[in-house]
Amino acid sequence: MTVLRERTLHDPCTPFAVLDYSKMSRNIDRLGTRAQKLGVTLRPHLKTAKSIPVASSIFAGGAGPITVSTMAEAEAFADAGFKDIVYAVGLAPDKLDRVFNLLVRDVDLAVLVDSRQQAEAINRLTAATGQRIPTLIEIDCDGHRGGLEAGDPELVQLGLTLHGAGNFRGVLTHAGGSYSARSQQALVKAAENECDVANRAAEMLRNSNVPCSVVSIGSTPTAHTAMDLKGVTELRAGNYVFFDLVMAGLGVCETEDIALSIVVTVIGHRHDKGWTITDGGWMAVSRDRGTENQRLDQGYGVVTSLGGAVVEDLIVAEVTQEHGILALRSGSRADVPHFAVGTRLRVLPNHACATAAQHAEYEVVRLETSPGDKSTSGATIDAVWPRVSGW
Amino acid sequence: MTVLRERTLHDPCTPFAVLDYSKMSRNIDRLGTRAQKLGVTLRPHLKTAKSIPVASSIFAGGAGPITVSTMAEAEAFADAGFKDIVYAVGLAPDKLDRVFNLLVRDVDLAVLVDSRQQAEAINRLTAATGQRIPTLIEIDCDGHRGGLEAGDPELVQLGLTLHGAGNFRGVLTHAGGSYSARSQQALVKAAENECDVANRAAEMLRNSNVPCSVVSIGSTPTAHTAMDLKGVTELRAGNYVFFDLVMAGLGVCETEDIALSIVVTVIGHRHDKGWTITDGGWMAVSRDRGTENQRLDQGYGVVTSLGGAVVEDLIVAEVTQEHGILALRSGSRADVPHFAVGTRLRVLPNHACATAAQHAEYEVVRLETSPGDKSTSGATIDAVWPRVSGW
Repeated sequence: MTVLRERTLHDPCTPFAVLDYSKMSRNIDRLGTRAQKLGVTLRPHLKTAKSIPVASSIFAGGAGPITVSTMAEAEAFADAGFKDIVYAVGLAPDKLDRVFNLLVRDVDLAVLVDSRQQAEAINRLTAATGQRIPTLIEIDCDGHRGGLEAGDPELVQLGLTLHGAGNFRGVLTHAGGSYSARSQQALVKAAENECDVANRAAEMLRNSNVPCSVVSIGSTPTAHTAMDLKGVTELRAGNYVFFDLVMAGLGVCETEDIALSIVVTVIGHRHDKGWTITDGGWMAVSRDRGTENQRLDQGYGVVTSLGGAVVEDLIVAEVTQEHGILALRSGSRADVPHFAVGTRLRVLPNHACATAAQHAEYEVVRLETSPGDKSTSGATIDAVWPRVSGW
Repeated sequence: MTVLRERTLHDPCTPFAVLDYSKMSRNIDRLGTRAQKLGVTLRPHLKTAKSIPVASSIFAGGAGPITVSTMAEAEAFADAGFKDIVYAVGLAPDKLDRVFNLLVRDVDLAVLVDSRQQAEAINRLTAATGQRIPTLIEIDCDGHRGGLEAGDPELVQLGLTLHGAGNFRGVLTHAGGSYSARSQQALVKAAENECDVANRAAEMLRNSNVPCSVVSIGSTPTAHTAMDLKGVTELRAGNYVFFDLVMAGLGVCETEDIALSIVVTVIGHRHDKGWTITDGGWMAVSRDRGTENQRLDQGYGVVTSLGGAVVEDLIVAEVTQEHGILALRSGSRADVPHFAVGTRLRVLPNHACATAAQHAEYEVVRLETSPGDKSTSGATIDAVWPRVSGW
């Protein structure tokens, strides 16, 4: 009998992405419980994890409802049995053939529009094929992206156009502005505003005899802050499954909650500059600088031991394609730690969506179930979970 | 007989990466001719293109020499017949097994070190297996990353250690600081300095009876600026194959030379803000802001028509994961152009290495061979070239 040696975090070639299943489960439970208490359906946005096993973990074997950011995600999750999907990016009309192909497979895929051109393209397809295409209208709640404003008369026109062809389903908004909130109070306000704007838009449509069965809101910060979601039918959030330094900086989670990290290896030093150089450059951690304008700028990520203990004040200060330069944050009085060449460390991401996107798969560990630092630092890899890529 | 309709830039689902073969060929010829005149071997860095057909285009069917940034590239290019390779990132000792596996397949793979720990790990493997491991010592020429300084006594120690085991081959430096040069004069200085520092390091080793057969320098800016490369044996550059807005900002190329772009589709507008919204977010163009500190900040990229004509002052001003917001650069007096929903546009990248890394493949066109704007805008796709990914 061959005894296969366990794979641990010392084994895969660095850099690679690690997913801490224990932390992820806690994050999933936290928002799941919250949504239940608020009496609203949680429709997780899978643009962060882009992984079928992660989706299965969220639903404990169930199958949705979910949100996606690309048609490639919609197709991959539909193939895996997730058949209640919102594609939450404004529809490019030439993607309608792929939408149609899913709808005729009995996938309940809703699309998003904010213009007459999009609505007309949708209605033309319905006229030609008889296939209804569930459509949400994007509502702008904070001026950060697309969408119609709640008071815009165009909203009713668009609702009537879609409803006339049996294609209207509801309204959707996203408080993207909440990512740059500077206080808990600002987050609470963003959450209230997101809910109010969506409800006003829905009301405006109903007043014009356009039935609006879906009122969809959500962003990870507002989903964790909202106190009253009266009128809202579903809550979308994606980042909460992993969390990241931006969310920690906003106070939405603690650094200890971050479930995604990148394992890197020390490849050199510049002792004269206090630098430790690793093989984790922007290719591994991404170019995202999401904490740049927060109170605490985390560079390109916070450094921890392989076991997950944060190294005081040590951040990824600079990156090139395949090099990460670790240094103490400016003003730190900590001693420069010494990590010998070959030492493995981990980097917590600024922005989990961007960092995860640099990798094809996750090495899944249950760090918190291993007792003591010795075992956690060499935590056993339980599984390798692939990501969906492309568009 | 079935007549297959040609695929054009109107066909693939957006966003996708386009490689203009005509521009790329011109860029390849330009530096190839330059290297020949300077009497130095060009060893292209394939970390930008990461594509075997691109490498084949550079060598017109020949096979190297090449530079790579990951062992995954080394293995993929070796499999494709490129057997003279420099792996130009400081070696993590636990990657030595993969290095060994290529060396025993008669791939001439040289590795890079700047510390005794790395050299000793290399020598131990040679002692255990008899396999020589060609090793370059990294020299720091401008303080931007790792490497030993040319005058550091450790350099000779390291050279002697490696030479004693038959593993020393030469020195390598990279003027990464040239990317932030502010003038042609600064570029010329960076190029001279890169050459001088490498030669001084080589001389120091030779004076201690360590034969130094390779003196390797290069970065795309300095490779296009260097006037005299006496003593240098090889020139590395990678970005030059595609070029990008950072290089155009440095004056190393023209905007018209940029061979890589991303095709995106208009999905909406915010007329009140002068915004055009596309499906090309940071997932498609990357988070790289390489032009941020140049004279002309290009946001997340310059917008062109599908045919490649630059739209006056229109840049990708902001990005989220799957949304790009196009707006006139601040201070522009141009009229806001109107592109209907569904219009395809192209985005020229800040940093070709980072933007290309967001895609799994290139749609290859020969835009310049098509006469007139009508044909170029719907240019025929001649091939789809895959990229190497991972580590």
